[in-house]
Amino acid sequence: MTKNLALIGFGYWGPNLLRNFINIPNCNIRYCCDIDLEKLQEIKRKFPHMLTTQNYNEILDDESIDAVILATPTSTHFDLAVAALNGGKDVLVEKPMVQTLQQAKILVQLAKKRGRILMVDHTFLFNPAVIKIKELIDKGEIGKILYIDSTRTNLGLFQKDINVIFDLAAHDFSIIQYILGTQPKQVSTIGKSHFNNQVEVAYITASYPEDIFAHIHVSWISPVKVRRMLITGTKKMIVYDEDTAPAEKIRVYDKGVTLDHPARSIEQIKIGYRTGDVWLPKIDIVEPLSLMAKSFVVSITSRKVLRSDGRFGSEIIKILETASNSLKKGTKVKDANSFS
Amino acid sequence: MTKNLALIGFGYWGPNLLRNFINIPNCNIRYCCDIDLEKLQEIKRKFPHMLTTQNYNEILDDESIDAVILATPTSTHFDLAVAALNGGKDVLVEKPMVQTLQQAKILVQLAKKRGRILMVDHTFLFNPAVIKIKELIDKGEIGKILYIDSTRTNLGLFQKDINVIFDLAAHDFSIIQYILGTQPKQVSTIGKSHFNNQVEVAYITASYPEDIFAHIHVSWISPVKVRRMLITGTKKMIVYDEDTAPAEKIRVYDKGVTLDHPARSIEQIKIGYRTGDVWLPKIDIVEPLSLMAKSFVVSITSRKVLRSDGRFGSEIIKILETASNSLKKGTKVKDANSFS
Amino acid sequence: MTKNLALIGFGYWGPNLLRNFINIPNCNIRYCCDIDLEKLQEIKRKFPHMLTTQNYNEILDDESIDAVILATPTSTHFDLAVAALNGGKDVLVEKPMVQTLQQAKILVQLAKKRGRILMVDHTFLFNPAVIKIKELIDKGEIGKILYIDSTRTNLGLFQKDINVIFDLAAHDFSIIQYILGTQPKQVSTIGKSHFNNQVEVAYITASYPEDIFAHIHVSWISPVKVRRMLITGTKKMIVYDEDTAPAEKIRVYDKGVTLDHPARSIEQIKIGYRTGDVWLPKIDIVEPLSLMAKSFVVSITSRKVLRSDGRFGSEIIKILETASNSLKKGTKVKDANSFS
Amino acid sequence: MTKNLALIGFGYWGPNLLRNFINIPNCNIRYCCDIDLEKLQEIKRKFPHMLTTQNYNEILDDESIDAVILATPTSTHFDLAVAALNGGKDVLVEKPMVQTLQQAKILVQLAKKRGRILMVDHTFLFNPAVIKIKELIDKGEIGKILYIDSTRTNLGLFQKDINVIFDLAAHDFSIIQYILGTQPKQVSTIGKSHFNNQVEVAYITASYPEDIFAHIHVSWISPVKVRRMLITGTKKMIVYDEDTAPAEKIRVYDKGVTLDHPARSIEQIKIGYRTGDVWLPKIDIVEPLSLMAKSFVVSITSRKVLRSDGRFGSEIIKILETASNSLKKGTKVKDANSFS
Repeated sequence: MTKNLALIGFGYWGPNLLRNFINIPNCNIRYCCDIDLEKLQEIKRKFPHMLTTQNYNEILDDESIDAVILATPTSTHFDLAVAALNGGKDVLVEKPMVQTLQQAKILVQLAKKRGRILMVDHTFLFNPAVIKIKELIDKGEIGKILYIDSTRTNLGLFQKDINVIFDLAAHDFSIIQYILGTQPKQVSTIGKSHFNNQVEVAYITASYPEDIFAHIHVSWISPVKVRRMLITGTKKMIVYDEDTAPAEKIRVYDKGVTLDHPARSIEQIKIGYRTGDVWLPKIDIVEPLSLMAKSFVVSITSRKVLRSDGRFGSEIIKILETASNSLKKGTKVKDANSFS
Repeated sequence: MTKNLALIGFGYWGPNLLRNFINIPNCNIRYCCDIDLEKLQEIKRKFPHMLTTQNYNEILDDESIDAVILATPTSTHFDLAVAALNGGKDVLVEKPMVQTLQQAKILVQLAKKRGRILMVDHTFLFNPAVIKIKELIDKGEIGKILYIDSTRTNLGLFQKDINVIFDLAAHDFSIIQYILGTQPKQVSTIGKSHFNNQVEVAYITASYPEDIFAHIHVSWISPVKVRRMLITGTKKMIVYDEDTAPAEKIRVYDKGVTLDHPARSIEQIKIGYRTGDVWLPKIDIVEPLSLMAKSFVVSITSRKVLRSDGRFGSEIIKILETASNSLKKGTKVKDANSFS
Repeated sequence: MTKNLALIGFGYWGPNLLRNFINIPNCNIRYCCDIDLEKLQEIKRKFPHMLTTQNYNEILDDESIDAVILATPTSTHFDLAVAALNGGKDVLVEKPMVQTLQQAKILVQLAKKRGRILMVDHTFLFNPAVIKIKELIDKGEIGKILYIDSTRTNLGLFQKDINVIFDLAAHDFSIIQYILGTQPKQVSTIGKSHFNNQVEVAYITASYPEDIFAHIHVSWISPVKVRRMLITGTKKMIVYDEDTAPAEKIRVYDKGVTLDHPARSIEQIKIGYRTGDVWLPKIDIVEPLSLMAKSFVVSITSRKVLRSDGRFGSEIIKILETASNSLKKGTKVKDANSFS
Repeated sequence: MTKNLALIGFGYWGPNLLRNFINIPNCNIRYCCDIDLEKLQEIKRKFPHMLTTQNYNEILDDESIDAVILATPTSTHFDLAVAALNGGKDVLVEKPMVQTLQQAKILVQLAKKRGRILMVDHTFLFNPAVIKIKELIDKGEIGKILYIDSTRTNLGLFQKDINVIFDLAAHDFSIIQYILGTQPKQVSTIGKSHFNNQVEVAYITASYPEDIFAHIHVSWISPVKVRRMLITGTKKMIVYDEDTAPAEKIRVYDKGVTLDHPARSIEQIKIGYRTGDVWLPKIDIVEPLSLMAKSFVVSITSRKVLRSDGRFGSEIIKILETASNSLKKGTKVKDANSFS
């Protein structure tokens, strides 16, 4: 049975959502909503059969609508989602889910109470490269993970209502949480704002269970687009570069550190290196957003979110909020050693 | 007049020093010294005219020797340099100069007292790419510097007597100090040791005057060799990649953030982006080590160190020591926000 | 006034054309036509307001249709275009225009006779990188062009009705003809077919006026996608790589050969090299196909094809046919020097 | 027993040979010979124990000398080698061996008659990447080879006595002959000279047994240094790029063309594609020239050339001569199809 959806917000990401959702057979984008009349006219010209409106309530009042997709600025997510859930609609919300952990918790509880689907568009969880990395780790190919280093920079789209942590590190934390299957224990941030009220560059360190740590560098003011993650394990090492050719996104290095045992004392341990082949596993060439869109349509049919549900989104908000608070409390200088 | 030199230590770097010093016309490598007899025999076979010895004092006692070059493990630098300076020899010492700031200060004072030349081989100060970057910055091409991000990783040679900060971040701090012409005000480190007593991965943040900050990632356990530095300015941005083709080491991005003025309030400032050409300035293709070697020979002749003197080396040790101490004091977890 | 268009053929390229044409304001894709009913149903589902048909004549009979866009297999282009022109429709036809020069000439004449617009989708003529290269050459930045070397390979979509020359070299010849503004004088080909009746790998040499020559390597059986063109001039050299980051598609090398004059005889000329900076001019980030689509809509309104008209397409067919015939006549072995 | 060698010629390659030969234990570079007195003085300064001379006969008259290494311009190879062989010396000659096949044959016969070792420095035959490729092919990993495409370009060192084919294609043909184990049946060339009497750009096609063909592009006037070879097989494809990181020189693509059988007729064969992983086998990091040098010293001791003997060098000269003659006879235009 075809599901009727309404897409709210046609800024940067909305058109991508529209393009992917209209490809799904049992799904009908019935409404498009934005406050910009010109954008609505443009949509109407291309898709005369779609309803367009500046009035969100009109959509909530339409009983034929099964779900809303929220692609509006982050600061509006909470109110729009609350209204939709209260209106009996399922909700897909862009990342980051909301601006505070408190908001996130309320949404999760409200969805549960209303029996509505709440899903967050953490698109990377539907990225074939990320899924492949999880497979490799779960199969033990990498050994025990030692550390993860991620860089996500660009001369990017400054956000007015969220900082670079909520904007970009949301991706890194969602990927790491997905592949490790666990939350960080501690988070600490160093950051800086040059032009804005919002922090534009941040370096975040997170401690995960089993002595794994992750370091994340996010920036809106770097000249080069970089989305690269290093995962170092005791057996192998992975470099995941989202911006290379599709067939080369993941490189598995058969490299590692070797310890010559037995050694009588720690001083006698000889540390060596093992260097082997590099392997670039085949990655399916499919747009992750299309898989995310399909997954949402499956979710509202089956009444169960497979991946990236409200709780997952909420856990990411918890991390982002903690990381941002670490920053506000002046972490960046607190324990620095002054030169005297 | 030809200077007579003695080269001490034929591990990883010694052969490179020898190869470069023998190319300098008014310079004669008279002695080679190492505790490994096989290495000395190998040198003797290739260069029968050189004197080889396992006995460092033999060199110090030889009045024909003008200077010694110390390419031994860092933990030996201090004693060997003290002996050489007391023996009336000029000294070139590999980076890092010594293991502690106290040792560094003693050496600088001793060299001054004895009227001897003391130079530290911070080779990057003689790297044509680094010199070009300094030129660009000094000419104001980049505008005001906002932040510097440096990555220096490898599946590297673990050092037994120094950590990865002393080993690798010595390079980053020497480059940054050279191009900024100033020392950091504060330094803070997060790091980790997996296999060793020594820290193998470290993330260091340094605050410089004029609100500039630098972040440095060094690692001995990364599968890919990376030596890349980003310098973000208000007018342009530089990416310096030591490991690309010689003609492409420096990329100058004519990119930046624009603020639309006048604005009545901070909220009304519109932040935009300027994207222009990319420019790869020609870099002279010359081995930096050969320029460093020449500079040392000039220094011991002119009795004045042009660049990278003992004081410079000492300032770098101060930074490295502070960064390492920050780590020991448990900085990495102290101010992290616990999850409750 | 809005133009009504019909899009014929929904194989590989048709969906891209549809996506771009629906973005143009004064243009309406009224019909979609394909022999595959499933594809039509898919279009109908996404764009219920469009008419779909398996019957091309239905479109020709509809007087409201101003133009047809032919994205069908090459072997069908001629018949479909003849019918469209005779039916009073303007025509945009995918490259290669047709299968023979004779067909091309007939189409050009027919379009002229009927007063209809005939344009060929040589998309690269609307590629901002190609346009920038033409600008640089026209301004004399490169000096006199010496030779052009182009590689266009992939593990590609084998075509059944055309060889790799008609499929891929069509792009190279259209680019070269556009930037040089002239046709080749001679063409010679070496090629090979391994799996197919159609040649899958070809090396084509073309001589242009003013002693310029071009060499083109096209292949359907190469593991790596390469679309790279080198343009060597007396003053500078350009490398155009379509598959790098948008900001880096064109590299202008300030490099060249220098001749030391005066020399008493040819033997005495000293040949040297000049090596300078590399410059990556900013290229507008815009999809070339969208510019091509807009240009077609402008053409059918203004009744004048700005770029890539039937005559241009016809000249390309002449080259492709000559190159293919050179192959059939056994050029590849005729003058090879046998080993005895 | 230590072999005494004399190195003749200190232009571009001589210093590299010296650097590698002095590393070999049972080998002594006794003489260095060049017509440039300054170069000899420079060598004398660095290696006071070596004899230097401008007089080649002095070396030939010295009975202690076992072998000469000829690193002089190609046009001098024949006379110097003849004199050396007649003087009872073993000979290592730089590639290309000589200027004509006739000269090559005379040298091979003379070496045989005199019972002397004659080896040609085709360094790529000692390149670990090339050796690895041969292994992969011999083990059948690639399947049947379809075609080989090689590009070797630079803004290079123009040679006065040989064309770009003798200079650069010598490498490609030596590699191909080594990995295929067979000579080409036919060779055909298209080339051009812009500045010089010597051809500076050439495209060479060679037919090998079993329907394999190779295409080689060599150029002295390209702005970018490229040394890349593609080997396409029925099972896999190899890209060998000499100028990437040592660990990434060889990429093995598990890609290929698939034919759906059974098919009733050729028209019914469905051609498909198989795309799998990419694999970068580990390559030993060792300078090929050092392996070549060791191999020569082994050869003059064991009285048997393991690889790259006079006959191999002679076969390469035959190919280069044929390729150059093909060019002189005007191949490039003979069969081109004129536009009328």
